[in-house]
Amino acid sequence: MDPTLTITDCKVVDLRFPTSEEAHGSDAMHSDPDYSAAYVVLTTNQSDLTGFGLTFTLGRGTDLCVGAIEQLAEKIVGKQLSTLVESFSETVHQLANDSQLRWLGPEKGVVHLATAALLNAVWDLWARAEGKPLWKLVCDLTPEELLRCINFSYLSNALTKEQALEILQANEATKAVREAELLETGFPAYTTSAGWLGYSDDLIRRLCREALADGWEHFKLKVGANLEDDRRRAAIIREVIGPDRKLMVDANQRWEVAEAIEWVKSLAEFNLWWVEEPTSPDDAVGHAEIARAIAPIGVATGEQCQNRVMFKQLLQLNAISFCQIDSCRIGSVNEILGVLLMAKRFGVPVCPHAGGVGLCEYVNHLVMIDYIAVGASLENRVAEFVDHLHEHFVYPVEVKRGHYMPPQAPGYSAEIHTASLDDYRYPDGVEWQKRLSK
Amino acid sequence: MDPTLTITDCKVVDLRFPTSEEAHGSDAMHSDPDYSAAYVVLTTNQSDLTGFGLTFTLGRGTDLCVGAIEQLAEKIVGKQLSTLVESFSETVHQLANDSQLRWLGPEKGVVHLATAALLNAVWDLWARAEGKPLWKLVCDLTPEELLRCINFSYLSNALTKEQALEILQANEATKAVREAELLETGFPAYTTSAGWLGYSDDLIRRLCREALADGWEHFKLKVGANLEDDRRRAAIIREVIGPDRKLMVDANQRWEVAEAIEWVKSLAEFNLWWVEEPTSPDDAVGHAEIARAIAPIGVATGEQCQNRVMFKQLLQLNAISFCQIDSCRIGSVNEILGVLLMAKRFGVPVCPHAGGVGLCEYVNHLVMIDYIAVGASLENRVAEFVDHLHEHFVYPVEVKRGHYMPPQAPGYSAEIHTASLDDYRYPDGVEWQKRLSK
Repeated sequence: MDPTLTITDCKVVDLRFPTSEEAHGSDAMHSDPDYSAAYVVLTTNQSDLTGFGLTFTLGRGTDLCVGAIEQLAEKIVGKQLSTLVESFSETVHQLANDSQLRWLGPEKGVVHLATAALLNAVWDLWARAEGKPLWKLVCDLTPEELLRCINFSYLSNALTKEQALEILQANEATKAVREAELLETGFPAYTTSAGWLGYSDDLIRRLCREALADGWEHFKLKVGANLEDDRRRAAIIREVIGPDRKLMVDANQRWEVAEAIEWVKSLAEFNLWWVEEPTSPDDAVGHAEIARAIAPIGVATGEQCQNRVMFKQLLQLNAISFCQIDSCRIGSVNEILGVLLMAKRFGVPVCPHAGGVGLCEYVNHLVMIDYIAVGASLENRVAEFVDHLHEHFVYPVEVKRGHYMPPQAPGYSAEIHTASLDDYRYPDGVEWQKRLSK
Repeated sequence: MDPTLTITDCKVVDLRFPTSEEAHGSDAMHSDPDYSAAYVVLTTNQSDLTGFGLTFTLGRGTDLCVGAIEQLAEKIVGKQLSTLVESFSETVHQLANDSQLRWLGPEKGVVHLATAALLNAVWDLWARAEGKPLWKLVCDLTPEELLRCINFSYLSNALTKEQALEILQANEATKAVREAELLETGFPAYTTSAGWLGYSDDLIRRLCREALADGWEHFKLKVGANLEDDRRRAAIIREVIGPDRKLMVDANQRWEVAEAIEWVKSLAEFNLWWVEEPTSPDDAVGHAEIARAIAPIGVATGEQCQNRVMFKQLLQLNAISFCQIDSCRIGSVNEILGVLLMAKRFGVPVCPHAGGVGLCEYVNHLVMIDYIAVGASLENRVAEFVDHLHEHFVYPVEVKRGHYMPPQAPGYSAEIHTASLDDYRYPDGVEWQKRLSK
C-alpha cells in the first residue's frame, strides 16, 4: 500500500428502498420496513481509490445514522490509511471512546451503527488499496497482524489475546486447503425469502418449492404473531421440504421468556433446528433460560446483538447454539473478529445474519474469513441469504446451488451503482420524489 | 384533568453548557464533557399548560437526540393527554416499537435517550395538569392505576404484574407516614462535587472539608486512570472525612473484569462502600464476577445501563449491591418504576445517579416515589447530588443538611429559564456565538 494514501473526504448518503410496499422483510416486530442504508463514500488523494461502506437501517432514522457518521468521520478524514490500519485497534478505540459521543451509547444504537458504516468503508478502502477482496486481505494477514486489528476491550475474561493467537496459529498450516475448498464449492447458505410474515400460505408454498428446486436445504419461517398461523405455516413448509431438511423459526423478539418456551414447544413437532430471537436481544440470562428449556432445539440470536460484550455473555451463559453476527450493527471486521474468536473458543458455530441492504455482500466475506482463519469448520454452519436488492450493487453476491461463492473483486463489496443512489436517495431521489409528490 | 387537553406541538432545543472549560465532570472516560441536554417543550391547546422534559448529554451528538425526539414526537403531537396517560404503557409501547426506528436500538442509545426526554415531558405535563409535583402525582395513584403506567415488557421472568401489585399494595397503608417523614427531613444525598478526576489534590482536600462542614456523610472519588494517583487521593479523602463516613469510588467503566478486581483490592484499605461502573455497563456477567470477588465492597452501576432488561439481569445475577437508575437514559418514570419494583423484589437499594443537567431535579422526585410507594426503606439508600447548573432551572433542587427536600411546584422540575436557553442554545446562543466566533 502507498503510505501517502490519505482519506480526504467522507460523504454520506441517506438511501432508502420502498420495500414496505410489497411486505418484503415483514416480521413480528417490523411491519413496514423500508430497507435502507446510511452509505459512506471515503474519497482519497488518489482519484482511482475510494472506500465504500454502509450500515443497514429500516427507513426512518437513517438520517440519524448519517448525522452520527458525519460526526465520527472527523476522526478519520485527513488521516493516512496506513496510520489508521497499522494500529487499527487504536483507531477503533478512538472512534468508540469519543468523550462526548460515548455517552450516547456506549457502543450501541445509532452511534455504533455509524461506527460500523465508517469502519466498513475503511476496510473496503484497505482491501482495494491492496488489490484484494476483503476476505483474502484478512486471511493473508499473519496471526500477529490480524491480532492488531481486533477490538479486545472488555473481552479478557472470556478471550485473551494469547488465546486468540493460539486459535489463529493453529489454523495457519491448513488455511490454503480451506481456501481452495471455498473457491470450489462455496459456503453453505439458507434462504429466508420464503417465510416472511406478510406472505400468504400459497405464496409460501410456491416460494418453498422454487427454493427446493434451486438446491436450498435450510428454510426459515417468521413466527410469533399468532400460534395457529405459525403451526399452519410450519406444517406447510415441513410438508413441502420433507422430513430431513432443516427448518428454523424466527420470532424477532416477540416473546417474554416463559412465552417463548411454551410457543416453541408447541412448534416442536415440526422438527425445528433453531429458534431465532425468541426474546429481547439484550437478555442473555433470558436466552439461557430458554435454551435450557427447549433443548435440543437451539437458540440463535445476534442480528440485534449490540456489541461484542453482549455476545460474550450469550456465550458465557450457554445461551446460544448459533451465533448470528451482523456485519453492520457491531463495529465492523475489528469487532466481528473478536466475536468469531470467542465463538470458536466456546464451540458455537457462527451463522451470520444477512438480507437487508448489502448484508449478504458483507457476509459473503465474513464466512470466508471464519472458515479459513478462525472457526475452520463447516459443521452446523450456514449463512443467511435473501435475494433482494442485489441489483443495486456493483459487485453483487454470487450464490450457486445454495452456496455463497468467494467474491473476487478488490474491496468489501458494498459499492452501490450511482444510478441507484440517484433513484433512492432520500428524500430527493427520483423514486422518492415520485412518491412524496403524490 | 381536563379531558380535552391536547398536545399541539413539540419544540426541541439543543442546549449545551461549556463545562469542559473548567474540568467539571471529568472522569476516566469523559475528558471534556460539555454538560448538555436535548430539551423538549410540549405546547397544548391551553396557553397556561406546557410540558417540559429533557435528556442529559455531553455535547457532541445532542443534535442526534434532538432529531430522534422530533421523529418520535409525531406519535404524541395531536393526542389528548388523557388518552396518552390512561393507557400509558400502551403509549410507551407505541414509542418503543416504531417499526422502523426500533431497528436503531431497540430501546437503547440515541433513540431511547430521545424516548426518555419525550416521556419526561409528558409526565411533567400530566403533573402540572393535576396541579401536583410529579412525586405526589405518582404516590397518590392507586396500585392499580400505577401498574397501568409501567413498562413490563420482557420483565415477567423476574417480576410479574401480580408481584408488582403485591409490593405496591403492601406499602399503601404506610405511605402517608413516609411522606410526612420526607417532608420533614428529606432523602439522604451524597456529593460527587469533591472528587472529579481533573481536580488537584489541594482542591479535593478543600472541597471535602467544605462538604463535611455542610453536613455531607458520603464522598465519592473518580478513579481508574492511575492506581498511584487513586491511592493518594483516596488517602487524602479518608484522612479528611475520618474512618466512619462512607467513601465510594467510581471507575466509569475503565477496567477489564480481572483488572477491576485487582484495582479495587488495592484500594480496599481505604474502606470503600462501593465501586461504581467497574467495567462495561453492558456486562452483567462481568459485574457478577467482580461482585463475588470484592465483597463486602459492593458493586454499583446504572448511569449507562441502557434499559430495564439490563437492570433485570444485573439483579438476577446478584451483580449489584446498589441500583443506580438514571432518570434520562431509560424510558422515563414508566420504565423506572419497573426497575424500582424489581430492585425491591431482589432486595437491592436504589441509589440514583444524578448530576449533569437536570438529573438532580429529576432524581429528587424519583427517590420520593421509591421511599413512599415502592422501596419503603432508607437503609443503604443515598442519592447522588452535584451542585452544578441548578441556577438554570425554574424550580431548582433543594438540598438541606445533605438531604434532598421534596419539590413543591407542580410538574417534574425540568423547566429551564428562557434566558438560559437564549444563552446556551447550540450553536446560536449568546455564549456559543462568543466562543465560536473567536
